[in-house]
Amino acid sequence: MLDLAIVGGGPAGLTAGLYASRGGLKDVVMFEPGMVGGQITGSSDIENYPSQMQAISGMELMQNWLPQAQKFGLKHETEEIVRVSKSADGNFTLTAASGKRYEFKSVIFCTGSVPNRAGFEGEEEFFGRGISGCATCDGFFNKGKDVAVIGGGNAALEEAVYLAGMCNKVYLIHRRESFRAAPLAVEKTRETKNVEMILNAAPIKVLGDQASGVTGLTIETKNGQRRDLAVSGIFVFVGRSAKTDALRDENGRYLCDLDKNGEVVTDIRMHTSVDGLFAAGDIRAHSPKQVVVAAGDGAVAALEAIAYLERGAV
Amino acid sequence: MLDLAIVGGGPAGLTAGLYASRGGLKDVVMFEPGMVGGQITGSSDIENYPSQMQAISGMELMQNWLPQAQKFGLKHETEEIVRVSKSADGNFTLTAASGKRYEFKSVIFCTGSVPNRAGFEGEEEFFGRGISGCATCDGFFNKGKDVAVIGGGNAALEEAVYLAGMCNKVYLIHRRESFRAAPLAVEKTRETKNVEMILNAAPIKVLGDQASGVTGLTIETKNGQRRDLAVSGIFVFVGRSAKTDALRDENGRYLCDLDKNGEVVTDIRMHTSVDGLFAAGDIRAHSPKQVVVAAGDGAVAALEAIAYLERGAV
Repeated sequence: MLDLAIVGGGPAGLTAGLYASRGGLKDVVMFEPGMVGGQITGSSDIENYPSQMQAISGMELMQNWLPQAQKFGLKHETEEIVRVSKSADGNFTLTAASGKRYEFKSVIFCTGSVPNRAGFEGEEEFFGRGISGCATCDGFFNKGKDVAVIGGGNAALEEAVYLAGMCNKVYLIHRRESFRAAPLAVEKTRETKNVEMILNAAPIKVLGDQASGVTGLTIETKNGQRRDLAVSGIFVFVGRSAKTDALRDENGRYLCDLDKNGEVVTDIRMHTSVDGLFAAGDIRAHSPKQVVVAAGDGAVAALEAIAYLERGAV
Repeated sequence: MLDLAIVGGGPAGLTAGLYASRGGLKDVVMFEPGMVGGQITGSSDIENYPSQMQAISGMELMQNWLPQAQKFGLKHETEEIVRVSKSADGNFTLTAASGKRYEFKSVIFCTGSVPNRAGFEGEEEFFGRGISGCATCDGFFNKGKDVAVIGGGNAALEEAVYLAGMCNKVYLIHRRESFRAAPLAVEKTRETKNVEMILNAAPIKVLGDQASGVTGLTIETKNGQRRDLAVSGIFVFVGRSAKTDALRDENGRYLCDLDKNGEVVTDIRMHTSVDGLFAAGDIRAHSPKQVVVAAGDGAVAALEAIAYLERGAV
C-alpha cells in the first residue's frame, strides 16, 4: 500500500510531486505516459511565469521540474492510468492501460484539459506558434496588431473583449447567425468598437510559413465566398475537454462530482467530493489554465494529502 | 479614476501586477512601502519554487519579479496604504500614511501575514537562518536531524507531526501543562514516537553563530532549571497576524469578511465578500503560505479583476 499517486505530469502534478516527496511522504508516484511538463511544452513563448525575465519556450520552462522533484524522491511511472476507483476499505485502486493495478492511500488527479480544435487547414501545425487556445497567455504577443477569434460561446466572446483591450482589431468568426453565449456577453462584445463580428463564416486555412509564423486566415461564408484576413494571431475557443475518463467507472458514473463543464469540483484546498481524492490544475473547475496557478494548486493538493495521511487516512 | 490598485508587493502582488498589466489594464499601481518581494526575501534557502534546480536565497528568487511586471507597465508606489474604503459610487478610496488619497475601480489586497515571535534571545537574528515559521518550507533542510518546535496550538502540533516524518527527533516545547490544540491533534502528537514533549518550559536563547548557524536552544522549565537541546533547526508556531489593519474603518469594522483567524475569506476565484475587492496570498483564509501558491492566487485575482472591469465594474 503506497502513500500517494499523482495522475498527470504537467505543472500541477510535478509541483504536487515536489511538495509531497519533500514533505516526507514515502512512495510518491507520478503517472505520466506522455511527455512530462504538460500542454505548455507545446507553446513557443512564455513570459508570464513569475521569476523569468526573458520569453522562453514551454520546453525550456519545464525542463527542470521533474529532476527538481526527483531530487526529493518522486518516482515517475510512464504507465497510462485508465481507471481510478475507491475500495470499500477507503484505499484507491489505479488500473493502467497495461492491465497492471496499483493500490494507494490517496490520489491527486491532475490530467488537465485540452482545447478542442475548430478543424481547418494548418491548425495543428501552427498550434502554439501563432494559433492559441489562451488569450491570457498569448494575447500580449499580438499587442497593437489584428487577430482572429474563432467561436461563439461565452469563452470566445469574453476572450474577444479581453483581446480588444490590447490588440488593434479583433475579428470574431462564428459559424452561425446567433450566439450560444449569454445575452449580456453578446451585447458587451457588440459594444466593443474594435471587435468586428463575421457571422455565418468558418475558418478554412492558415496563411503563413515557418519563418514568418501566422500572417493570415482564409475564411468562407455560408454562400461560399472566401476572404483573407491579415492577422498575426488566431485564437480558437470552441470548448475544452477535461480529461476525466479515468474517473468514470464501467457504468459511466464518475468517482467524484463534476460541474456542468465536465470539470472536477474542488474547494479552495483542492479537496474533491471524495475523501483522499484531490484535484489540481486545469482539470478543476474555475482554473484559469495558467502554469503558475496549476503549480500553486499542486502544492496545495500535496500539503492537503500529507495532512489527510497524517490524520490516519483510512 | 484608475483601473486597479494592488496593496502589497510580495509574490501575490507582483504576480497580480504582471497578469493585470500584461492583460491590458491601464494604470495598474502596486503599493509597497517596504522591500518588494515579501517575507520570503528574509529566507536564506529556497528549493521548492518550481523550475529551480538549486537552493537559492529569497532575495535571489524574487529579484526579477518587479522588473518582469514593470516591462508590461506595472507602476510601483512606495506609499504605505493605511485605509481602503468603498464609496457609495462603487469605487475604492485608498488613503496613504502621508494623507494622500487615490481612487481606483478595483483593488487586490495582498499584504500578507507575519508569524508572531516567541520572544527569546537570538530569535530575530537567526529568523530565516535556522529559525523558521514554516515546516513545509524549511523542514527538509533538517532531514534526519533533531529540531525544536515552539508552541501549543493546532499549528504547532500539526507541524511537529509533519517534521517528525522527516527529522530524527522533534522536541515540542510548550509553556503550559495543557494544550489549546484540538484533543485529536494532541493525541496524534503523543502517539508520534519521535516527538518528545517538554511542557511547562520556555525558550531562552539560541545557541550557534553566523558560521555554523543554529546548533542548539537553551530552554528553562517553570522551576528554573535550564537545559541545552542540540538542534539544527527551531520552528516557532505561536500564531500569525494577518496584516488587515488597512481594511478596518474608524469604527473598527472591516471592509470585508474575515474568518476566526482574522484572515480574509475568499472563494476559489479570490473574490472577497465585497464586489471589486479581491484578496490573494498569505492573507487569505486557507493559504498554505507558499510562494508558488501566493503567485497563483495573484494571477487568479488579476484575471478576475480584469473580468470585473470588463463587465462594467461600477
